[in-house]
Amino acid sequence: MKLQTAIDRISLEEAEKLAQQLNGKTDILEIGTSLVKDYGNVAIERIRQKLTQTSLLVDSKTIDEGAYEFNQAFHYGGDIVTVMGAASYDTIAACYEVAQKENKTMMIDLLEVSDEKIASIKDFPKAIYALHHSIDRKDKMEAAASVAAFHRKFPEIKRLAIAGGIDLEQVKKLAQQDLLEVVIVGSKIVKAQDPIKAVSEFMEAIHNENN
Amino acid sequence: MKLQTAIDRISLEEAEKLAQQLNGKTDILEIGTSLVKDYGNVAIERIRQKLTQTSLLVDSKTIDEGAYEFNQAFHYGGDIVTVMGAASYDTIAACYEVAQKENKTMMIDLLEVSDEKIASIKDFPKAIYALHHSIDRKDKMEAAASVAAFHRKFPEIKRLAIAGGIDLEQVKKLAQQDLLEVVIVGSKIVKAQDPIKAVSEFMEAIHNENN
Repeated sequence: MKLQTAIDRISLEEAEKLAQQLNGKTDILEIGTSLVKDYGNVAIERIRQKLTQTSLLVDSKTIDEGAYEFNQAFHYGGDIVTVMGAASYDTIAACYEVAQKENKTMMIDLLEVSDEKIASIKDFPKAIYALHHSIDRKDKMEAAASVAAFHRKFPEIKRLAIAGGIDLEQVKKLAQQDLLEVVIVGSKIVKAQDPIKAVSEFMEAIHNENN
Repeated sequence: MKLQTAIDRISLEEAEKLAQQLNGKTDILEIGTSLVKDYGNVAIERIRQKLTQTSLLVDSKTIDEGAYEFNQAFHYGGDIVTVMGAASYDTIAACYEVAQKENKTMMIDLLEVSDEKIASIKDFPKAIYALHHSIDRKDKMEAAASVAAFHRKFPEIKRLAIAGGIDLEQVKKLAQQDLLEVVIVGSKIVKAQDPIKAVSEFMEAIHNENN
């Protein structure tokens, strides 16, 4: 399992500083949608420059114009780019084609996507499928139980991730469960008093259990 | 019925020039998602400066972090901002609350949204509901028939828009039909050899039929 640390809703200057500090200390760094929409491609470009030892995920949340948005995000430095599972099949297929051509990775964000829709978009074997509980929702998610239920329903989907209010206790359970490829953590790391200490705790929980 | 002219997938310099030319010549100018994601808030700010006689729609396609994204887009100059109908109810409600507080408008993009989901989000009386056919889809839409079918299913939704490959013939039919508040046209205006001539033809078709 890999740790993806998501940064969101801060200035580009703060994001660059954080990217520099987290370089090599998290497996994947995520430029959150807020940074994409606040600053555009320059945010991808500048953060990419700080990351010599960490992969970069651009949380583009593409839902239309799939080829255009994926080409842009890869061009400016993303290794992984997100498309919404709520997008049309044709949009997701267009994103996948770009990712395959560029030798990079598509992540499908399953925010608010029905099982019926998931069944219709499960045939992208190299995509990562990310279970995602909206930050705006008032109900909460139990991560390990959600992953187990998803795996029972869709055992043929091999590359799995999860996002949405994940804390250290949940990460320990997810590491033991060993069904996920990527766990996505945001505020529990980047809003911690000491983000560098926090990211080390998460990395230890993940890579000690998994090795 | 109002004309919303959408600009997409061009440089910010070209977009600013086009906004200046279209100021006062279209009812609403739309900054497309590609400009939002390519350039960020600076695109909203710069295009806003060109528009003294035309409203500005920011096609943010918000699907999470509703309050944050809506606050940003209104702050930088949007009059209308879009949220995806595919977002959670709580996200849409958060966007609506911001729009109401700011005395501005939320448009709900119904791209790939089921009737069941529409029924669950129809209680935002001041929102504009936009029927939308993905640019990536291989099948095509007959606009007036889609609007009529939607109106029969959801007569309680009063503020309607439509987007997706709309041409001048379709606009004439939609104007006669008189069910829409906003018709959204992109490439048929901005990719025309003479966008200013094209926008005049669309405005004439709309406002002559309607008055």
